[in-house]
Amino acid sequence: MLTQFETIRDRGVTAPAGFRAGSGRAGLKSQGDDIILVAIDRPGTVAGIFTTNRIHAASVDFSSQVADRGFAMGVVANAGCANACTGIDGAAANVSMARSAAAALGIREDAVITASTGVIGQLLPVPLVEIGIAEAAGRLGAGQQSDEAVARAILTTDLRTKMTAAECRADTWEGPITIGAVCKGSGMIAPNMATMLAFISTDAQISPAGLRRALVGAAKSTLNSVTVDGDTSTNDMAIILASNAGTRADATEEALEDFTDALTRVCDTLARSIARDGEGANHLVSVRVVGAASDADARRCARSIAESPLVKTALFGRDPNWGRILAAAGRSGAALDPERVEVHIGTNCVCARGTVATFDADEVRKFLQSDEVELTVDLGVGAAACRFFTCDLSYDYIRINAEYHT
Amino acid sequence: MLTQFETIRDRGVTAPAGFRAGSGRAGLKSQGDDIILVAIDRPGTVAGIFTTNRIHAASVDFSSQVADRGFAMGVVANAGCANACTGIDGAAANVSMARSAAAALGIREDAVITASTGVIGQLLPVPLVEIGIAEAAGRLGAGQQSDEAVARAILTTDLRTKMTAAECRADTWEGPITIGAVCKGSGMIAPNMATMLAFISTDAQISPAGLRRALVGAAKSTLNSVTVDGDTSTNDMAIILASNAGTRADATEEALEDFTDALTRVCDTLARSIARDGEGANHLVSVRVVGAASDADARRCARSIAESPLVKTALFGRDPNWGRILAAAGRSGAALDPERVEVHIGTNCVCARGTVATFDADEVRKFLQSDEVELTVDLGVGAAACRFFTCDLSYDYIRINAEYHT
Repeated sequence: MLTQFETIRDRGVTAPAGFRAGSGRAGLKSQGDDIILVAIDRPGTVAGIFTTNRIHAASVDFSSQVADRGFAMGVVANAGCANACTGIDGAAANVSMARSAAAALGIREDAVITASTGVIGQLLPVPLVEIGIAEAAGRLGAGQQSDEAVARAILTTDLRTKMTAAECRADTWEGPITIGAVCKGSGMIAPNMATMLAFISTDAQISPAGLRRALVGAAKSTLNSVTVDGDTSTNDMAIILASNAGTRADATEEALEDFTDALTRVCDTLARSIARDGEGANHLVSVRVVGAASDADARRCARSIAESPLVKTALFGRDPNWGRILAAAGRSGAALDPERVEVHIGTNCVCARGTVATFDADEVRKFLQSDEVELTVDLGVGAAACRFFTCDLSYDYIRINAEYHT
Repeated sequence: MLTQFETIRDRGVTAPAGFRAGSGRAGLKSQGDDIILVAIDRPGTVAGIFTTNRIHAASVDFSSQVADRGFAMGVVANAGCANACTGIDGAAANVSMARSAAAALGIREDAVITASTGVIGQLLPVPLVEIGIAEAAGRLGAGQQSDEAVARAILTTDLRTKMTAAECRADTWEGPITIGAVCKGSGMIAPNMATMLAFISTDAQISPAGLRRALVGAAKSTLNSVTVDGDTSTNDMAIILASNAGTRADATEEALEDFTDALTRVCDTLARSIARDGEGANHLVSVRVVGAASDADARRCARSIAESPLVKTALFGRDPNWGRILAAAGRSGAALDPERVEVHIGTNCVCARGTVATFDADEVRKFLQSDEVELTVDLGVGAAACRFFTCDLSYDYIRINAEYHT
């Protein structure tokens, strides 16, 4: 059991022992740094999960091969250019980026994870990227300043940096384990990885297989349960690097479960921060489905509600329009009992037994002004449950995406 | 083979012999008529297709039973109140509406199709509906004025009336067949019926089974291939009533195929008019997928592109962002060859062999100002194809749906 999960304030990916990070400017974004390096001082273990989009970037192919081997010592990532749909030239540019990062870090190129985010169809300009990598390598460091610099450099249309770190203890471990993380993502976000890059670090001692099980387990209800607009991207990945400098995390099955729990809490923070910073978002919305016949039904239903433009525009309008929520549940294909279904907005029951409940509309409207809004739908047929994160759909989503020109 | 399909200008549901229609005001909408009646002067055949949403209105249950029996003589429909999620009171109100229409038309209540559209969760106010029905019955007539009155009365957030009529001939028929139609729908539109009500009339002589086959066949690539926002509604239906006053349409298998072709062209006009009038729409967008491995793959891919908020905001911004189109194709799950996939915007090839093609961006941007925009994606793996209708996603969609308060 986890006995401690203590957030380390204002820290991110370099919080665990053995990690350094730095950022540099390649000129891919109109201003600021756009290249990041994350490095460990010894051979580490790595695991990753990747976009399921059949159209994906060279970095996804390259990095999934590195993750399959299970060992890595560094990450290089750029914002401002997705280097997706760029054919063999794109693949070559990606290898050049890995090679340049490997040289700067003094490691082998097959120990480097590469990642890119930005406009699809633009080829990565290698000479510029090399300048950015050199600058980032010269600034490698550990501490709040380094954490914040890389969190800022990796952003695209995001408004806020997203990082977190925690010190954890469990009665199955011999000592504390620290986990740090940085991520980006605010549009083209949908389950199974979507314009989302997440880099997680830990000082745990752990095998590649254990790390992979923990990451897959942690991502299911967190990074893979976020949707901003249903659009799964071509480039996305969540990577965890373990420096193996500290406590053993997979000595027993129970120890690994505790590590997965700790990692889930870190990923939950990342997932919420992505939904909260969804393009044009005013609210972090969590959609809970309970009373479902199966896990698959619960997930299908939660996703249908979380992706419904009509639900999301109603939330933007602060309108307790439970009919749209119920319609989205009904069209999801999940089994439900129309005579027993219930909808709650926060703690207010707005629909019971499939029809309108007595509620104070003004109170619900007031609740809908909150920063965080929870919707709960009880399908009334079983015991399975699921939660999904999303945000409202506002004028600003349109502005951002109609004006983000290729 | 169809030898003639001649649009009858400015006409709609009363174009075929034997049909009369009228509208009245119940006060469900803030202004104008909101009740319509459509009647035939003799026992007719009927077929219908209905929303697949598990949460659906009383009118859907009631009318699908009428359609299952295959015989009907009239339609009563209201706008401004969906009467969905209103429990047994809603079911009773729906029966009252049918009974009141039956009395006004002098027919049996089980020969009446009922339909409702509007806000979910509001109970139909029977006394008001009865006033509207009485007024509509007093105004029953055939001709342009009647066609336009019912087309206007059935609208909700639609900006434009939607009606069409055509006189058709085929070498497998003994004489001409006329088909008329009226429909509404501009939001909560997605395949398998979605806030869409379509009432189609014909003077053909045809069995209920033949009529049903023709409607299902015609709807697949038309009414069931429209998406505005992916939200399938609780209330929607497409109904075809045949007065049997004219030519036999199902004497042979070939004759029925010709009738299906004619009906498909009518439904195509309705589908395009719905997408063109999508909430906040500036463009009618047709998404063609070719080179797919199967029909199911073609449909999955076309729908994924047509529902992508990122594609739709790019179209609103008139941006030839083929990367978003390709990303939506890739995430659909349809088989594709990343090295052979192509994207065309109108006649401009913007992506070939999976990467950017040489094209004149200014010319494509100019094309994207057109009223109608066609996107074509070739998946490069097979011979199956499909077309989907949608529209762009604009500020006005947000305004309409954030401000359409319950």
